[in-house]
Amino acid sequence: MDKVVALCKNRGFVYAGSEIYGGLSNSWDYGPLGVEFKNNVKRAWWKKFVQESPYNVGLDSAILMNPQVWVASGHVGGFSDPLMDCKDCKTRHRADKLIEDAAGELADGWSNEEMTAYIKEHHIKCPNCGSENFTDIRKFNLMFKTFQGVTEDAKSELYLRPETAQGIFVNFANVQRTTRKKIPFGVAQVGKSFRNEITPGNFIFRIREFEQMELEFFCKPDTDLEWFQYWRSFCENWLLSLGLAKENMRLRDHSAEELSFYSKATTDIEYLFPFGWGELWGIADRTNYDLTQHANHSGKSLEYFDQEANEKYIPYVVEPSLGADRVALAFLCDAYDEEVIDEKDTRIVMRLHPALAPFKACILPLSKKLNEGAGKVYDALRKEFMVDYDDAGSIGKRYRRQDEIGTPVCVTYDFDSETDGCVTVRDRDTMSQERISIEKLAGYIKEKLEF
Amino acid sequence: MDKVVALCKNRGFVYAGSEIYGGLSNSWDYGPLGVEFKNNVKRAWWKKFVQESPYNVGLDSAILMNPQVWVASGHVGGFSDPLMDCKDCKTRHRADKLIEDAAGELADGWSNEEMTAYIKEHHIKCPNCGSENFTDIRKFNLMFKTFQGVTEDAKSELYLRPETAQGIFVNFANVQRTTRKKIPFGVAQVGKSFRNEITPGNFIFRIREFEQMELEFFCKPDTDLEWFQYWRSFCENWLLSLGLAKENMRLRDHSAEELSFYSKATTDIEYLFPFGWGELWGIADRTNYDLTQHANHSGKSLEYFDQEANEKYIPYVVEPSLGADRVALAFLCDAYDEEVIDEKDTRIVMRLHPALAPFKACILPLSKKLNEGAGKVYDALRKEFMVDYDDAGSIGKRYRRQDEIGTPVCVTYDFDSETDGCVTVRDRDTMSQERISIEKLAGYIKEKLEF
Repeated sequence: MDKVVALCKNRGFVYAGSEIYGGLSNSWDYGPLGVEFKNNVKRAWWKKFVQESPYNVGLDSAILMNPQVWVASGHVGGFSDPLMDCKDCKTRHRADKLIEDAAGELADGWSNEEMTAYIKEHHIKCPNCGSENFTDIRKFNLMFKTFQGVTEDAKSELYLRPETAQGIFVNFANVQRTTRKKIPFGVAQVGKSFRNEITPGNFIFRIREFEQMELEFFCKPDTDLEWFQYWRSFCENWLLSLGLAKENMRLRDHSAEELSFYSKATTDIEYLFPFGWGELWGIADRTNYDLTQHANHSGKSLEYFDQEANEKYIPYVVEPSLGADRVALAFLCDAYDEEVIDEKDTRIVMRLHPALAPFKACILPLSKKLNEGAGKVYDALRKEFMVDYDDAGSIGKRYRRQDEIGTPVCVTYDFDSETDGCVTVRDRDTMSQERISIEKLAGYIKEKLEF
Repeated sequence: MDKVVALCKNRGFVYAGSEIYGGLSNSWDYGPLGVEFKNNVKRAWWKKFVQESPYNVGLDSAILMNPQVWVASGHVGGFSDPLMDCKDCKTRHRADKLIEDAAGELADGWSNEEMTAYIKEHHIKCPNCGSENFTDIRKFNLMFKTFQGVTEDAKSELYLRPETAQGIFVNFANVQRTTRKKIPFGVAQVGKSFRNEITPGNFIFRIREFEQMELEFFCKPDTDLEWFQYWRSFCENWLLSLGLAKENMRLRDHSAEELSFYSKATTDIEYLFPFGWGELWGIADRTNYDLTQHANHSGKSLEYFDQEANEKYIPYVVEPSLGADRVALAFLCDAYDEEVIDEKDTRIVMRLHPALAPFKACILPLSKKLNEGAGKVYDALRKEFMVDYDDAGSIGKRYRRQDEIGTPVCVTYDFDSETDGCVTVRDRDTMSQERISIEKLAGYIKEKLEF
């Protein structure tokens, strides 16, 4: 993990946020390579979940919403962590984490009273100072609060959305009406969400300001479990098609006890990060819970009239919810490789799928004298996709620099290129080289981008 | 304007935010067509400002930053509106606006004392009730405030960024180090910003949560005015190349009095909206003001060593700053057309540049019996770009539906298509039709996307 983080910082994938001011805890900025890479991840998702999908359309709803949305969704009442302070050393802890860490017991869904009793009974100690002198549990809501308008009173209190999903639910009727889509159909959204986590960490795995890629798929009641299976394997295949190693992935189905009360089925797709298994994607059959909540709280009907079946119903929802930063981290960890060439030589290579690589190719003039001709190749390719140009140092060193940032193809422009109109193309993974004509270069690279 | 707003709502470009809850003042959600359209605007910007630029690289910095950033940038001290309340009718007003509206005097940069004195002296009245009974002026900071961590004390107080620019400035050294870019070079960013405006309005023209596309271009001192001219025309050309009408645009150079104290030159590119001229793009020579401020406040050197000139300096900055929502609105207003076909027939057509149009083409089977063959054409095209499919109603009606949302090409698949492998292609703007082979269809459409 340290190696991936160091490479990210040194090559411009990810910097610590506000670094020159000593940072801001748990905030990260995507650098020149990182922004291209993460945009590619988001585009790859959009391509398969919207552009090529016969079912889904997109949406981009606002981060700031009417606060009633979060009352209806249950976030105002229930989206909180149970916190207690150690009176002796003044550190703050999550009660459920204390129980889990000390006793190996899953405290999910326990009441404050149950947790307090358990901690006392089992003499669970402060992990920092070892005392047993805790305050009572206080609920701490995870939504960031802000104020709109001129005064900071409760009337203008707003939240930064903790998920993009509710922006889709409240627009269900708008989208259905304006697209004239028939059930089943889905609405997809990519955007920032904010959660005031008290224990963020693991680089960009758990951050307070993060980006989600969520699909809410609306279907007929009693077809929901079929669609749940459909999207469950669709999501798995998306990851596999972009090269994530099957052996580092697992699908964990929630047990009946673990399921939310409204959910009929939930599966987490987890990835084996260097720090252990972590959730990438939650796929949940949420029944008609969300739309029913919003219908009740808003007073608007969110029923759908199914012409074929000649009946009205509130659609059921299957939700695959993916963290963009998390899956980006998974792709980076999975792609990182140190390949032993021989006893004295090891190369670092990021084996990213070409569709995700920041640069699709790098143009290398064999000599600075060739900058004009090589520059023309560069200019032509850049109209199609992101391309790098490097004329500094030996060809071998330049290859290695590109390996480290995952560039799938290096294109060497040499003196022969001036007359034969061909270049030498070197493959990142196999290091094999072949000579191809400049005319065919764009097509050659584009083929690699398919997934 | 009302027509554009209505079309946006009815066809799924833009909905009122949180609509089923009675909305949230001045918030808007981009629907299925809007998200594609706005993504196309952002991609068109990125393509010319990053992908094809020999100078610039991208960045994606966090919305939440260390609060010291906003002290250094001047936003904590100076980014505020001077407000006063009418004691009689309890309405709230911006003092500078009162002066401007009542006396036609520009109160930019006046002190509170000057404004108060002017209002009293000239007997400026409350625009709502006509009385002259105002409170004193209070400064109201435009940044949205929030709190990170577990307690709401001043220590954990954060702001939602009011501009993306500062995320670039504080990363100047990081980007330069990791990309090994030499001056002159630029850093480009697209992202959300937030301003707690008390008088937002005009649909998506002035909104509290908005998206910016900003470039900070770092250059050698004394070359800044040249680069200012370069980017000034580059920006103008970008708008023209995407079809914005020249006669609806103007470049307004700031006079010496209007310039910020640190700026050597500023030009606003304005567009003639239905509600009047409005600023789209601010292009400013900001000298070395921002980097110097951050160097002073952070204690970190932000000097650049220029190897060629063998000297150290703090780079000068030229900043072209564009609002994504505003320019999207300009493109929509500019594209909206009602074309009189004959006495009885008028068609609504959105003459969007094909690169910006939500759908690049729509596939129309002449009969539902042809859905299989037409579906194959649809599936093949969707791998390349966004394509719509419509088999409902007469071909004429379907053409009109696509005209209204700006689809540049309608592709009719008829009974002959089954045997001759050709389709009829109908152009949105000229309504002319031609028969072309299915094989050449993708290439035919792609050519139209260039700009």
